[in-house]
Amino acid sequence: DLHQRILKLAGALLNGQVKPGTHVGVIEWDSHRYLEMYFAIAGMGAVMHCVNPGLAAEAVLYTINHAEDEILIFHQDFIPLVEKMRLSLPTVKRFILIKDDLSIPVPSWVNEEYEEWLVSAAPVLDLQDMDENSLATLSYTTGTTGKPKGVFFSQRQITLQTLSDSIALSALGSYGGINKHDIYMPLTPMYHGHAWGMPYVATLWGIKQVFPGKYNYQRILGLIQKEHITFSHCVPVILKMILDRPEINTVDLRDWKVIVGGSTLSESLASEARAKGIKVFGGYGLSETCPVLTIANLKPFMETWEDEKQLSWLTRPGFSLPLVYIKVVNEDGQEVKADLKETGEILVRTPWCTPAYYKENVLSDELWSDGWLHTGDVATVDAYGYIKIVDRLKDVIKSGGEWIVSLELEKLILQCDGVADAAVIGIPHEKWGERPLAIIKARPGYEDNLTHEIIKAHLKKYVEAGLLAAWALPDSCEFVKEIPLTGAGKHNKKLLREKYLFRA
Amino acid sequence: DLHQRILKLAGALLNGQVKPGTHVGVIEWDSHRYLEMYFAIAGMGAVMHCVNPGLAAEAVLYTINHAEDEILIFHQDFIPLVEKMRLSLPTVKRFILIKDDLSIPVPSWVNEEYEEWLVSAAPVLDLQDMDENSLATLSYTTGTTGKPKGVFFSQRQITLQTLSDSIALSALGSYGGINKHDIYMPLTPMYHGHAWGMPYVATLWGIKQVFPGKYNYQRILGLIQKEHITFSHCVPVILKMILDRPEINTVDLRDWKVIVGGSTLSESLASEARAKGIKVFGGYGLSETCPVLTIANLKPFMETWEDEKQLSWLTRPGFSLPLVYIKVVNEDGQEVKADLKETGEILVRTPWCTPAYYKENVLSDELWSDGWLHTGDVATVDAYGYIKIVDRLKDVIKSGGEWIVSLELEKLILQCDGVADAAVIGIPHEKWGERPLAIIKARPGYEDNLTHEIIKAHLKKYVEAGLLAAWALPDSCEFVKEIPLTGAGKHNKKLLREKYLFRA
Repeated sequence: DLHQRILKLAGALLNGQVKPGTHVGVIEWDSHRYLEMYFAIAGMGAVMHCVNPGLAAEAVLYTINHAEDEILIFHQDFIPLVEKMRLSLPTVKRFILIKDDLSIPVPSWVNEEYEEWLVSAAPVLDLQDMDENSLATLSYTTGTTGKPKGVFFSQRQITLQTLSDSIALSALGSYGGINKHDIYMPLTPMYHGHAWGMPYVATLWGIKQVFPGKYNYQRILGLIQKEHITFSHCVPVILKMILDRPEINTVDLRDWKVIVGGSTLSESLASEARAKGIKVFGGYGLSETCPVLTIANLKPFMETWEDEKQLSWLTRPGFSLPLVYIKVVNEDGQEVKADLKETGEILVRTPWCTPAYYKENVLSDELWSDGWLHTGDVATVDAYGYIKIVDRLKDVIKSGGEWIVSLELEKLILQCDGVADAAVIGIPHEKWGERPLAIIKARPGYEDNLTHEIIKAHLKKYVEAGLLAAWALPDSCEFVKEIPLTGAGKHNKKLLREKYLFRA
Repeated sequence: DLHQRILKLAGALLNGQVKPGTHVGVIEWDSHRYLEMYFAIAGMGAVMHCVNPGLAAEAVLYTINHAEDEILIFHQDFIPLVEKMRLSLPTVKRFILIKDDLSIPVPSWVNEEYEEWLVSAAPVLDLQDMDENSLATLSYTTGTTGKPKGVFFSQRQITLQTLSDSIALSALGSYGGINKHDIYMPLTPMYHGHAWGMPYVATLWGIKQVFPGKYNYQRILGLIQKEHITFSHCVPVILKMILDRPEINTVDLRDWKVIVGGSTLSESLASEARAKGIKVFGGYGLSETCPVLTIANLKPFMETWEDEKQLSWLTRPGFSLPLVYIKVVNEDGQEVKADLKETGEILVRTPWCTPAYYKENVLSDELWSDGWLHTGDVATVDAYGYIKIVDRLKDVIKSGGEWIVSLELEKLILQCDGVADAAVIGIPHEKWGERPLAIIKARPGYEDNLTHEIIKAHLKKYVEAGLLAAWALPDSCEFVKEIPLTGAGKHNKKLLREKYLFRA
């Protein structure tokens, strides 16, 4: 059925003037339709732009225009979003609507309704051979600076990542590995780094895949039980939200293996999950790296270790997948000692790193200086070759698996009446990993007037205007007389982070 | 230790004037040294020619000269062979001797003793990056015509085969799959299609590997027990010889998984193995295809089938590895029906097929006509996509995993006094899979004089002269008045094979 629908979708795309190289934007929840788009769009040589609908509306608009998408396929939940921006999308020629609810009215500017369009198309005979270096997907990350940056991957890159990841999960896997008997459900959205590449892995293996639509944790627990899901992946905050559901004790989770990545899996969260029988382990990767680089598998000799010691290794990013070269280098460019003490930046080479940021030469050169991809993550290495991330070089906050750019937030806070200076830092948070804290210096005369409520109200306007993601709103503010500066006259964020470490 | 020895061997090779592209011939039994050569020679951009010492001496000489090897590394067992041919090897500049027995004298023409040479070399700092299409290995097959033909594989090809094979063995594997807990021992020589690629798989996974040296089935059973081997591969005749050892009942073989390929795994042999607890399953590939193409894994729904039915699928070649495209086409070039009845030739496309026969343009064009590799194997396909081999298009005999070229044998028989015509066919044999049968027409006046003994004595001269492999000697002869011919005036071997099917 999947194969037939892929051939039909390719036929429909062909009718819709999609040619090799055409960029097709997709705004969709996790679904069987997204899976067929993964294969049909790239399978006919076109490029799937996985639009991240969690970005601010302004950023969504920016990415579709920057990607120069010619077709936009979107779920009915995003009708208001697309309605608002459609006249500002000069490259988009066709709008395809995915309806879950057949009764909703179809806006007049929509060209096709996805299901009808697919079902009525003549299937292509087969997906065509093409150059392995043909671009397959494009997506945007807000990782390290304000403007979303495009990362892109070829057929070859996705294929190699899928093969390598398959081995790390099966032959080298912990908890008995993952194999043809497993049942898969993503819990990292399919627009986020191809749901960590797992739909490709699951399809290669021919295993059953269950797609949860828009995430609803009560329904997700129901699906795990009903469909007997044995394998998922998510960021820590999603695992936490599932564990906090009142239904948690009614579901048997002892067969559920979960890779946790995106930010550090704390030992306490891992313990909590293991207490429910969930088999958790860490992984590491970036949007720039397709994304998986390491998985926290246990080596055979570790399997006799006591639980607590095992957990310490299972919660690390782990060790390199086949074909991944990682080195952790100090400021002198030397590899750090494998002593879990000396820290350095993680540099990566693997056949599936993005070759550049799309249409961004300067940033691309920075990303790839010296022929290694610079992750911006600071790590230590242990004697067994497992990395452990301790810090980030760059000035960003990662909250619930999503990036918050402190410089962006500071810029907006500065526009509030009475603010003289503002520094935003991430502080550790039990649930979200990190949350932004705004440290604010008032203008003379405003010292007693500024409050967290005023700042929040000010920022909410940007959220409503689609310029700021809702999750970026600081939970709290500190009002100070002076913000400490570095010798170079920049905010001394290192000092601020130390000072406010226990502020949360 | 392996990594250090590889770096040292690369250093020694560098001292020995080996450069990227240099051809290095290796004549060695299965050993840790062969494994380090796999990685050191290719890892410095040189080409490892895996010499098959089982060929007739004349053919060994031909292959080393055809390959233009500059270095020849050989085990002490082959001193007489190399001694005899060394003055006829104009390209070989250095002879490196591998000694197992330190007391044997070193011939004066030997340049280096392997272990000393390796240990005293300065290790290279690291194996260098190189073009992924760099040639890594070269070996010769006697598959389909008399003259050995070179097949060659690049770094890229071996890497892709290793990744794909890893998935077929682990994620998709039967009997619980093979994984990081397994212990590996080859029972297909490392000069034969890289021991079916398994030393690469085992090294990628980091599992323990045990190398049995020259095969001695009593010692091999001892190794399985002592080292707790859990994973091997071999041709049916080797499995049979192991099962026939008197020690068989003293060894617990219940953890031993064995891929059987090279020729058809009969259900009776598979049953016999399973009765000892051995977990056998089929596989399929050619020297031309690096070699693995299919593995007879059970799909999950087959795992509830009763034993006998399972066995029928486990003994087939199986279904395609990831990235392998197989089609079985009839004489009209159409794919056969998946009904296990209609037969056709197996055609293959995969990134790891040999691009050509080395320096053989005409044969290469035949191999690759229409852009598919023509295997010469005739098969049926079942509804689940498993192939089953029923015949061979080409006129060769496969005995104990080795090819016997009937045309070659016929040519030699014709040189015997009194022989007018000779046709050699393969007939089924319980132990060897096939054995050659010579059908001979005598010259007038010789009808009563020719005997099997005379033919055998005649052929033995060629064996002694190194022109014919000992295993190619026919076990028996049929003397006939006329050899039936086809319309085109060739021996009607189809008719002969039918007539002598039960001759064995």
